Amino acid sequence: MSELSFKLEKPGNARAGILVTPHATVETPCFMPVGSQATVKTLTPDELKDLGYKLILANNYHLYLRPGTDVIASYGGIHKFMGWSGALLTDSGGYQVFSLSPLRKMSDEGVTFRSHIDGSEHFFSPELAIKYQEIFGADIIMALDECPPVEASRGAIESAVARTQAWALRCKSAKTRADQALFPIVQGGLHPDLRRRSAEGLIETGFPGYAIGGLAIGEAKDQTVEITAATTGVLPSDKPRYLMGVGSPEDIVRGVSAGIDMFDSALPTRVARNGALFTRRGRIDIANARYEGDKTPIETGCACYTCLNFSAGYVHHLFRAKELLAYRLATLHNLYFMRKLMRDIRQSILDERFDGFARNFLSDYTPTDE
Amino acid sequence: MSELSFKLEKPGNARAGILVTPHATVETPCFMPVGSQATVKTLTPDELKDLGYKLILANNYHLYLRPGTDVIASYGGIHKFMGWSGALLTDSGGYQVFSLSPLRKMSDEGVTFRSHIDGSEHFFSPELAIKYQEIFGADIIMALDECPPVEASRGAIESAVARTQAWALRCKSAKTRADQALFPIVQGGLHPDLRRRSAEGLIETGFPGYAIGGLAIGEAKDQTVEITAATTGVLPSDKPRYLMGVGSPEDIVRGVSAGIDMFDSALPTRVARNGALFTRRGRIDIANARYEGDKTPIETGCACYTCLNFSAGYVHHLFRAKELLAYRLATLHNLYFMRKLMRDIRQSILDERFDGFARNFLSDYTPTDE
Ligand SMILES: [Zn+2]
Ligand SMILES: [Zn+2]
Repeated sequence: MSELSFKLEKPGNARAGILVTPHATVETPCFMPVGSQATVKTLTPDELKDLGYKLILANNYHLYLRPGTDVIASYGGIHKFMGWSGALLTDSGGYQVFSLSPLRKMSDEGVTFRSHIDGSEHFFSPELAIKYQEIFGADIIMALDECPPVEASRGAIESAVARTQAWALRCKSAKTRADQALFPIVQGGLHPDLRRRSAEGLIETGFPGYAIGGLAIGEAKDQTVEITAATTGVLPSDKPRYLMGVGSPEDIVRGVSAGIDMFDSALPTRVARNGALFTRRGRIDIANARYEGDKTPIETGCACYTCLNFSAGYVHHLFRAKELLAYRLATLHNLYFMRKLMRDIRQSILDERFDGFARNFLSDYTPTDE
Repeated sequence: MSELSFKLEKPGNARAGILVTPHATVETPCFMPVGSQATVKTLTPDELKDLGYKLILANNYHLYLRPGTDVIASYGGIHKFMGWSGALLTDSGGYQVFSLSPLRKMSDEGVTFRSHIDGSEHFFSPELAIKYQEIFGADIIMALDECPPVEASRGAIESAVARTQAWALRCKSAKTRADQALFPIVQGGLHPDLRRRSAEGLIETGFPGYAIGGLAIGEAKDQTVEITAATTGVLPSDKPRYLMGVGSPEDIVRGVSAGIDMFDSALPTRVARNGALFTRRGRIDIANARYEGDKTPIETGCACYTCLNFSAGYVHHLFRAKELLAYRLATLHNLYFMRKLMRDIRQSILDERFDGFARNFLSDYTPTDE
């Protein structure tokens, strides 16, 4: 399809590819920083570009509520509104309606929900989710889906799969812009057969890429990987696969093993603002007293702006003093770590040594329970 | 004195000079951004340098309490601790003891106070204020002073003048580093005769520069200017004069008229974080609904990073969404405004048209009551 090209440079379970959108050429596997409100928290677009990011996320739910479609339409889209010249992906808002809205009513027609900001009532249908995302103008847009909680009954998940399938079709029909690629979202909870049914239905409809939703929302990590692998096993190998809401460095490495090309998560930036900084051995808590007066960088050898210019002891001080610069420097470090991780993963795939890379990374890296 | 050279390029009531410290050559009149905790809130040292700042403030009281003298000593001073290669001035902490400490006990020996962070008890004497500031290593350090409230009785202010004089002498005696310049602080409240007495005593002792303290703490603006002019009238014309804690654009213009060379204030950065942005007509409140969707920059013609890259409507959105990038972009704009104001003031002095400049500026600029 002309709105998106995806070329696999190295096929296999773990894959390396090139994704070309109207605004960027993106090497995969890729991690996409989250800028729900048209800003990746604390950073400028220039800094994201300097970090090497070419594709970031924004969110239909958040931007529809504030500043609203009229404002963003008047700018000609999110790119111009936020000053980002790279590629953008907007989530449809389906997940946010389920996780943030205090009240919602689902029907086949769509979902009525209340704003988490002011309680006002709103309605998203598949057609409206596309209409708004066309106004926002991201390179990749997402179909509206129903994302049941992880503990939902099999029956509830089965019906969510059916509705998500029907909505994906309606999204495809509603779509008018030729320069945006629409991805549907595979649902099916932790049931491999429902995941397969969901994926097969969407594949039959035909899309330029496929997302996997409803994972990494509380289930055991092994289940995430297992269900991901079961789903990618069904998905066409020549289309990009996007695992939504993942995540941590260890989950991304395992996601790549399971055949994923694209990841997004607010985790690296969110935990950064809590002082949790990534290193190859796992996260450190920079506010811990042990870093007081530490002259070494957060991680020796890290070439991020923070580590090149400041000591761990200074960043520790900024966190202790609750200084705003702390959150910037921490975000820069974690997003640099993620970018480097994705580059290292990709190179190891190209060099046909990904399994060893993943084994070493996971044995060195001690995960943190969320 | 070798620790500091000051050369007047253009003498007069409003003066233009060059201040040379071990770390920088600073054009005066200058405004010094405040980085009390070894960070100018939200910004990196690189950004301060890009804005054209060469001399910034840090604070003895704050840094003594956190991270403490041992930590900063282990770095070899604040410059290395915070990664700032320009010049630094540390306030002695006298003012903070009076404004922040919940409990304090003054004697001729010094001041006992409680930390505003954890309530622990501490003691500053003139000798200790110098000792700590020598550890911190700023280019310019301040004598410990007694800063009575603006409503204090004449008797109380008279005794503060005497104590401040005695302490300035002890600070000078205690000082050992040849690469730091010590400025004493003129006190005397709103009494021109006490200001004169304070200044004359300090001049007799002899210092490389003089600060004026105990102003801009609640008195009427006209009084600030009047007392400032009465004080600079006594101060030697060949030494830099520093009006502490001032301030707003309009107060700085009037301070320059009154013969001041150096200013510091947290106001431009503090109000920026509240969405109050400087323009030549006065402050605007960027969170105001009128800026929603505004495609123009905060101020047309402003060449700051924020105005060159983002619209007022986007900055408005960031403030509404309480996004951390808001505070950075606002701080960049206000500090750019201050830097440009100082450059314009200086050029107008060199061109012998300062009075006209000041008149025009003050007639265009509508002050905000604090
Ligand atoms: Zn780093
Ligand atoms: Zn500006």
